[in-house]
Amino acid sequence: MASGSDDAQVISNKQVILKDYVVGLPKDSDMYVSTNSTIQLKVPEGSNGIVVKNLYLSCDPYNLVFMRKPVSDSYAFVKRVSDSHAFVKPGSPIIGFGVAKVLDSGNPNFKKGDLVWGTTVWEEYSLITDLQDIIKIQHTDVPLSYYTGILGMPGLTAYGGFYEVCSPKKGEHVFISAASGAVGQIVGQFAKLFGCYVVGSAGSKEKVELLKNKFRFDEAFNYKEEPDLDAALKRYFPKGIDIYFENVGGKMLDAVLLNMREHGRIAVCGMISQYNLDKPEGVHNLMHLISKRIRIEGFLVFDYYHLYPKFVELVLSYIAEGKIVYVEDIAEGLESGPAALVGLFTGRNVGKQIVLVAHE
Amino acid sequence: MASGSDDAQVISNKQVILKDYVVGLPKDSDMYVSTNSTIQLKVPEGSNGIVVKNLYLSCDPYNLVFMRKPVSDSYAFVKRVSDSHAFVKPGSPIIGFGVAKVLDSGNPNFKKGDLVWGTTVWEEYSLITDLQDIIKIQHTDVPLSYYTGILGMPGLTAYGGFYEVCSPKKGEHVFISAASGAVGQIVGQFAKLFGCYVVGSAGSKEKVELLKNKFRFDEAFNYKEEPDLDAALKRYFPKGIDIYFENVGGKMLDAVLLNMREHGRIAVCGMISQYNLDKPEGVHNLMHLISKRIRIEGFLVFDYYHLYPKFVELVLSYIAEGKIVYVEDIAEGLESGPAALVGLFTGRNVGKQIVLVAHE
Repeated sequence: MASGSDDAQVISNKQVILKDYVVGLPKDSDMYVSTNSTIQLKVPEGSNGIVVKNLYLSCDPYNLVFMRKPVSDSYAFVKRVSDSHAFVKPGSPIIGFGVAKVLDSGNPNFKKGDLVWGTTVWEEYSLITDLQDIIKIQHTDVPLSYYTGILGMPGLTAYGGFYEVCSPKKGEHVFISAASGAVGQIVGQFAKLFGCYVVGSAGSKEKVELLKNKFRFDEAFNYKEEPDLDAALKRYFPKGIDIYFENVGGKMLDAVLLNMREHGRIAVCGMISQYNLDKPEGVHNLMHLISKRIRIEGFLVFDYYHLYPKFVELVLSYIAEGKIVYVEDIAEGLESGPAALVGLFTGRNVGKQIVLVAHE
Repeated sequence: MASGSDDAQVISNKQVILKDYVVGLPKDSDMYVSTNSTIQLKVPEGSNGIVVKNLYLSCDPYNLVFMRKPVSDSYAFVKRVSDSHAFVKPGSPIIGFGVAKVLDSGNPNFKKGDLVWGTTVWEEYSLITDLQDIIKIQHTDVPLSYYTGILGMPGLTAYGGFYEVCSPKKGEHVFISAASGAVGQIVGQFAKLFGCYVVGSAGSKEKVELLKNKFRFDEAFNYKEEPDLDAALKRYFPKGIDIYFENVGGKMLDAVLLNMREHGRIAVCGMISQYNLDKPEGVHNLMHLISKRIRIEGFLVFDYYHLYPKFVELVLSYIAEGKIVYVEDIAEGLESGPAALVGLFTGRNVGKQIVLVAHE
């Protein structure tokens, strides 16, 4: 595919390369930054793709799906994502959500200068040919980085998970694990604004303070300081939990099952405590599902993309009215990307972890 | 409470007594048959209860709830059941579902000669004062014992569980564990009549034959002969399971989770493999809930009592048209009750286990 134009600029393109498939949790040594690649800043003749300059890259547990050797279950994720990017192989740059600026377009829906968010590549510039999850940014009166978070995939995850999967009722008691993370902090604020009692767990004093003082959760606790999670939950939920927004799995889920109320709902968004285990921990208290008629439901954000316009409208109005806040942890430069991503899985970040690649 | 009439007949009343709280699974020695009690066959003056002659008693996993030392979770069950019977203490007769004939009534809704089903006591005659789950039998052109099964609690459990909790669609692939039991055999036939592909598991060759030849399941297998449950499920569901009707829990649930299709549903009716364990087995594959967006929901029949008339109409028409069959395992005489109940938990029964106390 030759360039459509003789003056097409070819420049160096820094990338974060997957060195080998990740086993367990990602390590710094699983990735390296390369300056060996170049890119032409024009879409190839006949392509209806776009060439973008990547501005922000998003660090999500989700990234890991594309860094591990594919297994059957990966397909459910991958088939929703750009075919061209599916199943990153060692030696190729890693992929994930990001915010980017269109430099050239072969597609009638996008033009030079447009800002977009969606699945992109961990590199300075990308040619994106599969545009199924690329969304044009319409509102730029908020920080652009928000489109990796509160106005992007994590925000829509929180929206679909809370309003659709949890079927909340005003006054219900809501528990959120990994509550200061990209999704948890939004779910908690949605739940508070909806009129629920909200408690979150997190893994440091600093995060607990954030939950209570910044996000205005009713209560929050550091799970690492609780030798007995069941006792901790009974302290904050003497009458039980109506809604559990599950981000961690394992022992926390077992403790929650002991404390659910009748007809309670558990929305399973993630199980980050299990991702590094060869065999996930056993969950022993599922019998409580019967006597309490509990519903547990797993979900993926892709099933809620049709709600994106409604979601953006709500969140922008909340932001404008100062009713919702968002905390980001921004690592500067593509070089800092691997460490930022690795830190996500050990809880090193405070708030939504982002990599700033370039200013607009 | 003196008798309202001088000629009130006082007769001997054989009972099955709980000797001590059951630990683990029930044993024959946990119960004994006593002839020490007497009963007056008239309702006491001023009572709006009924005196009944018990005809059939139903052996269900459910009985065990009232034979163990009460724990917090028992309350969800017990509060739906007659207050007067709640929390059977050692030395008292055990309780459960049954079919009975009204001998005397202080209640305008019941008259002498009426046939009823609902919660009764394991004895020849009972005074029932809490009538909240006592239902008058309107259709007697079917075996009365059916009201302990296909037209009673297990039938309504199958109906609510399949049509309401499983949200079935025609052509879906359905798996049922403990499939030849009181509930499973009905769920399977409902699913076949609904247009689903249906596979059941059971614990003996005889039960597997029953599933295939009598209940017309598409396939059935003996889980005791399958060293690898995952492989067995893959054999019968090469494209995966849409609906799992869960009666057993533990290892089977773990294997099922590996074989569920996207947007699959699991209705949790029971977990009989776990009832004898101090600590239930761990379930390890819950992460599959997320990528496949699976819903697991526990339920109790009590939430579906409002559907009873609709359910009876459907099942009676199926019975009349010969579209549905029901297999019972009838133990004769109250004396045989303890062994029949004990056998239920080791799978000794073939079909719905009932105790015949007396003919009408």
